[in-house]
Amino acid sequence: MAGVISPSMSLWVVQDAAGGTAAAYAPLNEGLGAALRFGAHGPTVLERLRQLNGPIAAALDAALRTMGGLPLSVLMAKALHSGDELHNRCAAATSLLARNLSPALLALAVSDTASAPGAVAAAAALRDNDHSFLNICMAACKLACDAAHGVPHSALVTAMARNGTEFGIRLSGTGSAWFTAPAPRIQNGVYFPGYSDADAGLDMGDSAITETAGLGGFSLAAAPAIAAFVGGTAASTRAASEAMYSITLGRHPAHTLPALDFAGAPIGIDAAAVLDCGEAPVINTGIAHRLPGVGQVGAGITRAPLACFAAALAALDAATR
Amino acid sequence: MAGVISPSMSLWVVQDAAGGTAAAYAPLNEGLGAALRFGAHGPTVLERLRQLNGPIAAALDAALRTMGGLPLSVLMAKALHSGDELHNRCAAATSLLARNLSPALLALAVSDTASAPGAVAAAAALRDNDHSFLNICMAACKLACDAAHGVPHSALVTAMARNGTEFGIRLSGTGSAWFTAPAPRIQNGVYFPGYSDADAGLDMGDSAITETAGLGGFSLAAAPAIAAFVGGTAASTRAASEAMYSITLGRHPAHTLPALDFAGAPIGIDAAAVLDCGEAPVINTGIAHRLPGVGQVGAGITRAPLACFAAALAALDAATR
Repeated sequence: MAGVISPSMSLWVVQDAAGGTAAAYAPLNEGLGAALRFGAHGPTVLERLRQLNGPIAAALDAALRTMGGLPLSVLMAKALHSGDELHNRCAAATSLLARNLSPALLALAVSDTASAPGAVAAAAALRDNDHSFLNICMAACKLACDAAHGVPHSALVTAMARNGTEFGIRLSGTGSAWFTAPAPRIQNGVYFPGYSDADAGLDMGDSAITETAGLGGFSLAAAPAIAAFVGGTAASTRAASEAMYSITLGRHPAHTLPALDFAGAPIGIDAAAVLDCGEAPVINTGIAHRLPGVGQVGAGITRAPLACFAAALAALDAATR
Repeated sequence: MAGVISPSMSLWVVQDAAGGTAAAYAPLNEGLGAALRFGAHGPTVLERLRQLNGPIAAALDAALRTMGGLPLSVLMAKALHSGDELHNRCAAATSLLARNLSPALLALAVSDTASAPGAVAAAAALRDNDHSFLNICMAACKLACDAAHGVPHSALVTAMARNGTEFGIRLSGTGSAWFTAPAPRIQNGVYFPGYSDADAGLDMGDSAITETAGLGGFSLAAAPAIAAFVGGTAASTRAASEAMYSITLGRHPAHTLPALDFAGAPIGIDAAAVLDCGEAPVINTGIAHRLPGVGQVGAGITRAPLACFAAALAALDAATR
């Protein structure tokens, strides 16, 4: 059927190893630049999606099933020790993913001739796209945040998301309500060649679920190499993570930051602390073009708008009375 | 023939992309713990060597030939941005190696059934041994240092090596002579479970060629995650690299250190500066057991003995008069 992007959209499936039936899902990452998730939809974008959702996804699925899945939290912990903050930089995690999948993709290709082209294409896709792991990470973060959702009276932030117009958050204790404010502009963004601030849309996308789970801007200290990509210095990456300890309820027991002498990543945003400290969550993100069809044009650091947190706390307060 | 470790010892071949006929070679890395290079030679060590030098090496060779080789300096630059210092920590470089080889290993296994078991074993070997890249890196460093050797009157250090008894260096301007001093003990080593300082041999091995080429201890700032493995803090990893700028002649134009805001790695040890500053080269190394047959028992930081540099400079001075 003409116009249909793909007969089916394949999804990564992330489950809680501790048990339970909950799962979270994410599509396969298309790479930087012209990608559907950044508003691009030209012929090459659509053909790439057909490949990803067809033979590549089938080979990855078959390989993962023979392995019984991959332990994501271990892999994410290793990536944090290898220069990723796991939002804007997923290069090391993608390498670990490719390295761990390689033997199973090989065994698949050898044992099933029909799967061989898909297996080769899957290995090439992982080789060529440093962001392959990002979507898996987002699903893992969504699953972790969902597990903390629904605690009565809790001001813990369980989601942050943006749609290019509004920025919204959810609290654990306020059910399915979203509390929104105008989406911020990314300050001091670093643009791909040929683009500038004038091309930038407002903050957009659901990838801030990584910050909600203590990664991305919260773990920026893990990724001094990204300073060149988003603006800043090695010291500013450490300072960004350090500032987030004042607004978080805990430190991740397994995801540690070597540059902060293995301190656990700051995790569990307390909306009350955000307002008390006036310290807005740091988000390390991509920048979409303001017009549809172009895609990602840069990357940079932004902050969640404080107005969301004020609105959410007011609602929590009203519900508690 | 009984007692022969392998009918042949397979070697990585590193060549200068800028041209010339020079090459450097290194065997395949066996992994941590019980390994021939650390003095272990039990049945499992020998069987592992047979696998590595047989089907695994054959598959890697065939895959690399179809790719026309791999651009090592690019890969090493990426690894320095991913938490490796490329001596004691080669985890990210090994992941990049596996990720880049995976499509070619797959294509090989699919096109040549006889190679398939070796290709699967090669992918598994790369998956399971974080040090797979170390030997390749050592050969690349050897090639770089050799290119700087033989400059008349030059006090540039072109080799540092240890044999568990002596520590020796060569200068660019003093030909094939080695200038030696007693091998140092590794201070404040971190030991594998069950081992302690009492088990440690003196500093041993040719891997200090990585420091000679500006990696390892010289690029320690790239690898805060290794602080837990060798002792130290994130700040001490940065301080180690910073101290090496006082004894080196240049900064690597492509190998940069994100934690030092992308300063080029300190490279080109000036023996005269070592003595002037009293600042001995930092070496980030493994610790072998003092008895043969056991292998690696820990890791830590040591310093090259100043006496080597004094002896080398005296010889250079005598030859120049």
